[in-house]
Amino acid sequence: MSLQAGAAEDQRWMRVALQESALALGHTSPNPAVGCVLVRGGKELARGHTARVGGPHAEAEALDALAAAGRSARGATAYVTLEPCAHFGRTPPCADALIEAGIVRVVVGCRDPHSLVSGRGLRKLRRGGVRVDKGVLESECAESLRGFFSVAATGLPFVHLKLAATLDGRIASRSGQSRWISGSHSRRVVQSMRDRADAVLVGIGTVLADDPRLTCRLAGAQQPLRVVLDPLLRTPALSRVVGGRGRALIVGSASAPAARRRALEKAGAEVWTLNTRGRLGWQRLLARLAADGVLEVLVEGGAAVAASAVRAGVVKRVSIFYNARFMGGDGVPMLGSLGVLDPAKAPVLRTLRFGRVSQVDRMSPAQDDWLWEGEPL
Amino acid sequence: MSLQAGAAEDQRWMRVALQESALALGHTSPNPAVGCVLVRGGKELARGHTARVGGPHAEAEALDALAAAGRSARGATAYVTLEPCAHFGRTPPCADALIEAGIVRVVVGCRDPHSLVSGRGLRKLRRGGVRVDKGVLESECAESLRGFFSVAATGLPFVHLKLAATLDGRIASRSGQSRWISGSHSRRVVQSMRDRADAVLVGIGTVLADDPRLTCRLAGAQQPLRVVLDPLLRTPALSRVVGGRGRALIVGSASAPAARRRALEKAGAEVWTLNTRGRLGWQRLLARLAADGVLEVLVEGGAAVAASAVRAGVVKRVSIFYNARFMGGDGVPMLGSLGVLDPAKAPVLRTLRFGRVSQVDRMSPAQDDWLWEGEPL
Repeated sequence: MSLQAGAAEDQRWMRVALQESALALGHTSPNPAVGCVLVRGGKELARGHTARVGGPHAEAEALDALAAAGRSARGATAYVTLEPCAHFGRTPPCADALIEAGIVRVVVGCRDPHSLVSGRGLRKLRRGGVRVDKGVLESECAESLRGFFSVAATGLPFVHLKLAATLDGRIASRSGQSRWISGSHSRRVVQSMRDRADAVLVGIGTVLADDPRLTCRLAGAQQPLRVVLDPLLRTPALSRVVGGRGRALIVGSASAPAARRRALEKAGAEVWTLNTRGRLGWQRLLARLAADGVLEVLVEGGAAVAASAVRAGVVKRVSIFYNARFMGGDGVPMLGSLGVLDPAKAPVLRTLRFGRVSQVDRMSPAQDDWLWEGEPL
Repeated sequence: MSLQAGAAEDQRWMRVALQESALALGHTSPNPAVGCVLVRGGKELARGHTARVGGPHAEAEALDALAAAGRSARGATAYVTLEPCAHFGRTPPCADALIEAGIVRVVVGCRDPHSLVSGRGLRKLRRGGVRVDKGVLESECAESLRGFFSVAATGLPFVHLKLAATLDGRIASRSGQSRWISGSHSRRVVQSMRDRADAVLVGIGTVLADDPRLTCRLAGAQQPLRVVLDPLLRTPALSRVVGGRGRALIVGSASAPAARRRALEKAGAEVWTLNTRGRLGWQRLLARLAADGVLEVLVEGGAAVAASAVRAGVVKRVSIFYNARFMGGDGVPMLGSLGVLDPAKAPVLRTLRFGRVSQVDRMSPAQDDWLWEGEPL
């Protein structure tokens, strides 16, 4: 096989490992969602992805699946989106398991940024006589592991800001109505964003205006932690966010009425008291979420919370769904004030992708949505 | 040649005729900007486009160019974006000229919607023994002739609304500053929009805030009529729009101070007094612009004028340049109030195209603009 054909082959199998990892995304925190595929003679032997915390890693899942089928992994190549672990944690080291199973080559997407592991997995494999190649589809693998990398590098989860607006940047009419700002296909994309996030976060204004569930309605989804920024603990005990499936976390300030706290806790919500104002407030909150095992937070607005997160500089990814309508200047803007006077000093973003969310549905032209995605520079 | 190959060949040459017509766009009013190419044996003989009013039509230009080179058009095919005229106007009928020159086939993009001509050009050609085929790249030809078709069908010019905003739909900061909302490539695209329009229109707010020239800076451009909606005639006599190249037209209400009118006229501007409020006001203004020979108007804002045109239902095309920045909710919105309470009743648009205006310029990430184009449904 030529070098080039070999590289194409490696990318092809790494893409399979990435697809496999996507099945675990949002369900493995605080562990990274890794995918693994075992290949021999150009044929797939088995796949695996990280199980929920305490369960096996992707490599062990794939090896176990093969063993369960009564087959050997001897002589096979393992494609893994992240460097295999070399330490005893909740599970035995994957590097050892790969060597013992007779794997002859391991192809790795990303190095493990974690200080405990970095480089050790690869070294252990090489000492065990396994050929190691790294950096195949590295940026795609890093993107799939962005929450894990963010916590490893900064101690804070990856913050993804999602907004849904009309072409003129409005998230609701002047009376606060926001139904049908996005088409049904956009709403499905939002569901998969919630599925990959470990936490979904909104402000109290959104809870009072829309009473959202904030759950993920995809089949087999693990519910994200649902977080409300609510300094005065005004979230109604009977609201859907408190009653819905999964954990609900209301974040109030220290001065919030104790009676409200008790009422919310009685209704089943968790309550943190924490000053979330400004840059420091966001960092305090995010650090605590990371300590709770959250790798990625999806911020869904409203305008004040979105603007506050942008001003604090914590937003790492922005997704804006544009519905092809005009709301007019008296509608609710997608962002609150950013304190910008000189447009040249307005926060600049870099576009990552842009595209149509769905084909125009003739029965409902409001389905004609566009999704812009980028990152603050 | 197979039928299919013949169709591809026809489209190829009609595209050349369209390119040729684009050279005339915005410079021929009240005549349509037509393109013509003469072809024989698969080879181009000559091209032509409509000259300024009173000058020759596209077909005559092409025939003249060929004759000037001492060559004959006998046996050639003529590709024309619009049905050749059959009547004596300011110039003799093109249908006759084509027959006399020995053209054996005429391929037409669009029929002429004008009552005086419709169908007559084609009939005259057929009676003269010329084979006629029509409807080649019909929608592209109709798009290039949209102003001419609009006036023929409704008596009103085609209204194109152009807006330049940040991702959150702001055209200026809260202090009114709007510099650098678009990158340099977007500004070049706006220049070509001005070039194809016969009139450019803004509100008095834009004149007072930005003092724009509203001229077209492209080489060889014919200046559009520059129109300011200015009920009280507050446009400064020393403003750039009054002083700039080409005609400046200030549209005030009947109750505007006579002294202001005299001052503006003395400074070189034309002044119309006309109530432009509401649907009827827009129709009155547009009808008068059509009578003045305007086929297409480019409305460039600001927010109040844009919203007024949308509410009046006169806008037929919308172009929004998005610059990848966030301005924040206290910035100036791209549209004023549309009176929408229920988002389901917000005006719906159909997307025609969407794309990146320019590659990211590493030196200036603000160049990363996106252009959305569509039409109100």
